[in-house]
Amino acid sequence: MADISPSTVADLKHLAGEKAVVDGTDAAPLLTEWRGRWKGKAPLVLAPGSADEVAAIMAFCHANRVPVVPQGGNTGLVGGQVPQGDVLLSTTRLSAIRDVDPEGFTLSAEAGVPLQTLQETAAAHGRLFPLSIGSEGSCRLGGILSTNAGGVHVIRYGNMRDLVLGIEVVLPDGRLWSGMNRLRKNNTGYDLKHLFIGGEGTLGIVTAAVLRLFPQPVDRATAFLALPSPAAAVDLLSFAQERSGGALSAFELMTDRTVDLILHHFPDLPRPLDTTAPAYVLLEFEAGRKGELTTLVHSLLSDALERSWIIDGTVAQNTRQAEGLWSLRHRASEAMKKDPSFCVKCDISVPIRAVPPFLEAADRAVDQAVPGARVIAFGHMGDGNIHYDILGPEGGDDKVWRARAGEIEHLVHDVVAAHEGSISAEHGIGLLKREELPTRKPDTEIDLMRTIKAALDPHGLMNPGKLL
Amino acid sequence: MADISPSTVADLKHLAGEKAVVDGTDAAPLLTEWRGRWKGKAPLVLAPGSADEVAAIMAFCHANRVPVVPQGGNTGLVGGQVPQGDVLLSTTRLSAIRDVDPEGFTLSAEAGVPLQTLQETAAAHGRLFPLSIGSEGSCRLGGILSTNAGGVHVIRYGNMRDLVLGIEVVLPDGRLWSGMNRLRKNNTGYDLKHLFIGGEGTLGIVTAAVLRLFPQPVDRATAFLALPSPAAAVDLLSFAQERSGGALSAFELMTDRTVDLILHHFPDLPRPLDTTAPAYVLLEFEAGRKGELTTLVHSLLSDALERSWIIDGTVAQNTRQAEGLWSLRHRASEAMKKDPSFCVKCDISVPIRAVPPFLEAADRAVDQAVPGARVIAFGHMGDGNIHYDILGPEGGDDKVWRARAGEIEHLVHDVVAAHEGSISAEHGIGLLKREELPTRKPDTEIDLMRTIKAALDPHGLMNPGKLL
Repeated sequence: MADISPSTVADLKHLAGEKAVVDGTDAAPLLTEWRGRWKGKAPLVLAPGSADEVAAIMAFCHANRVPVVPQGGNTGLVGGQVPQGDVLLSTTRLSAIRDVDPEGFTLSAEAGVPLQTLQETAAAHGRLFPLSIGSEGSCRLGGILSTNAGGVHVIRYGNMRDLVLGIEVVLPDGRLWSGMNRLRKNNTGYDLKHLFIGGEGTLGIVTAAVLRLFPQPVDRATAFLALPSPAAAVDLLSFAQERSGGALSAFELMTDRTVDLILHHFPDLPRPLDTTAPAYVLLEFEAGRKGELTTLVHSLLSDALERSWIIDGTVAQNTRQAEGLWSLRHRASEAMKKDPSFCVKCDISVPIRAVPPFLEAADRAVDQAVPGARVIAFGHMGDGNIHYDILGPEGGDDKVWRARAGEIEHLVHDVVAAHEGSISAEHGIGLLKREELPTRKPDTEIDLMRTIKAALDPHGLMNPGKLL
Repeated sequence: MADISPSTVADLKHLAGEKAVVDGTDAAPLLTEWRGRWKGKAPLVLAPGSADEVAAIMAFCHANRVPVVPQGGNTGLVGGQVPQGDVLLSTTRLSAIRDVDPEGFTLSAEAGVPLQTLQETAAAHGRLFPLSIGSEGSCRLGGILSTNAGGVHVIRYGNMRDLVLGIEVVLPDGRLWSGMNRLRKNNTGYDLKHLFIGGEGTLGIVTAAVLRLFPQPVDRATAFLALPSPAAAVDLLSFAQERSGGALSAFELMTDRTVDLILHHFPDLPRPLDTTAPAYVLLEFEAGRKGELTTLVHSLLSDALERSWIIDGTVAQNTRQAEGLWSLRHRASEAMKKDPSFCVKCDISVPIRAVPPFLEAADRAVDQAVPGARVIAFGHMGDGNIHYDILGPEGGDDKVWRARAGEIEHLVHDVVAAHEGSISAEHGIGLLKREELPTRKPDTEIDLMRTIKAALDPHGLMNPGKLL
């Protein structure tokens, strides 16, 4: 916990200027994690209006050894954005779109621009910014960059890391590094941006970035399929990738229990298929021309049916039907929130062919530990990324269940490790998994990370207590 | 220049073991850069047979402050692989394919595996490893990884950096870090592999990597087009990307002078089009199914003709014709070698829309400096990457021309900088551009690189004198 003197706070306030100081009711929502899981504490909340202002603030904080927590849309899921007595630096006022280059397929924007604005700006120029996650209305560029956000379209377009060409960063000592590269090929030394992407604000404050854009797909095909087992999904995925020539843009797995829970809590949603099955897949393809997807999807599904990888399926006939299928998938998290039980959330990934054995082993381990616990497994199977969430036994004592959350999570992570997986596929480490991280990585890797951290931030001022 | 005592050399020789010591005629080709541009010098050449052996060698070298130059296929173009009195560590004996996972679309291999073997191994499992460069028969995984190789298919599949999921590295102090991640999503701390990818062996020795594979395309379409200007290529590229839904796999620009030079030195090659034009483009598309490309290419070309982006064009009717078109493109470097004049080679990139103004400005600058100098510009326009090569005036004094090479290169790089480009798009920095690098980058960026280098390799033992 930092100890910042009142006079230092006053000096910093003065330096930052009136416009940059966030007070009272405006500051409150920035201090509280949106689910209420962590309550932040900060002697001062600042929202500077330019990269130069950020640099001046960091130079002061460096000189006076004041720790700083950068925050974007405050939508993070691991507490990385929560100040613990540090100065909170909100990027919300860094809101300029600096440049859009449709021919060059690039967009340059500042850290405070919401993801949805990035998507809309690209679309207004006939281009696609493909990253799509649940919080896209409120999360911001700096945050999704610092956490290397993923989402449903990674299978076709990659993670945030793959969508960034250049960045601008204020370093822990207040220097501004402009690495706003717009080139696809540039082999001139270490590619430093990758330290800050996914660095969770522990190495500097990202103030702007150059993003990759893509052609707008003019056609989409969406299908909802019933599968005999998760194992069949491995074959189906491989087959769909082979056949579609890169057109596969989403491959979302949902277990029967997931679909049942969603339909239970959202009774107005229609069940897409009469056939019930152990697993379902929501598939999406994209194309640059009209027409060709229909043939593709139908030949693919009839072949998959013949090979017994699917039992039944439906293809959306129009955009409305496609949205209906997606809304089922998108309701998964809300359905869990509506459930009276506390939810233990595991954001994990394993190699794709390990998904079925992982699910089997994890289900067994959870059931042995807490008979009747309800596993809700779904997610981005195309990247081996499963949201493995667990509700307590129906009608059980939620307090007892909640008390065992850490133990259950650990147990699932053990199964993840046994399948060469990751304990954080998408959400990062933050406060939540900071203590566990060194137990899941080779010592050499943790040591390398600490070496980098010490080299770039020798006084430990950037987002202290997070990640490392 | 390092000063390694004979007794240290003897101790290291003993530690490495007889099998790892490369002597006499076997060592000679490893010491000479293949074009003869640099002559290497090493008190000892080692080719260890495993990552553990590499680790033991580095631990010794660290303890005894012995500098080490790692070398793969010795095909580098900037002298990064040339020892200057350091111990030369060849990765050629690290030759195992460790694992192929077709369903997971991954391949794990050791650093000494040649690129062509990677391609062939993937193909034998029904998969594609898409990286393709001129030296693919002799370059090796460790080298293309450490230089972040590019090539003709970057527009669809990305650079080497985009094709690597995990790596194994021996650090400068001899510790072995296994970061052999096979996951597409893994947000657990700094993504350290990106320091070593493109790090030119200055931060450690890559001993193995996990690579991404792709579905094998089952259909390809190749076209050769005549354009009214390089500016038309910007419009054509954007249009082809929009229409093809990601199927565009190559977009290679050649100026009229490039095509003329190739046909002059290779008179057996047929001229693909009767129409002569200021610029030509070789286009390639890939698809996962047969048949759909024909319609795409023909509609695209007829629209491009209507919009005056192309004057004429031909579409390969079969694989033989496609290979014929590609062999024209692939002869560019050889044609320059056959020319009696010395060739000043500039491996540059600029934002795509800056390619035409860059070409115009650079041509003007070169012509002003040396009237009659012959610019041969061609390359991966789809990535803004132009090989801007310059032959001396026809019949001129080659000695005089050669003496001005540095000046001409600098002049072109000034034009590159004015267009926000890169002085090394593909080949890296090595010895060749080491002194120029700090003049082309912000001081903060150079300083950050030096900070990282000092943190990971405090004694400066890894590939000293290269890059930084």
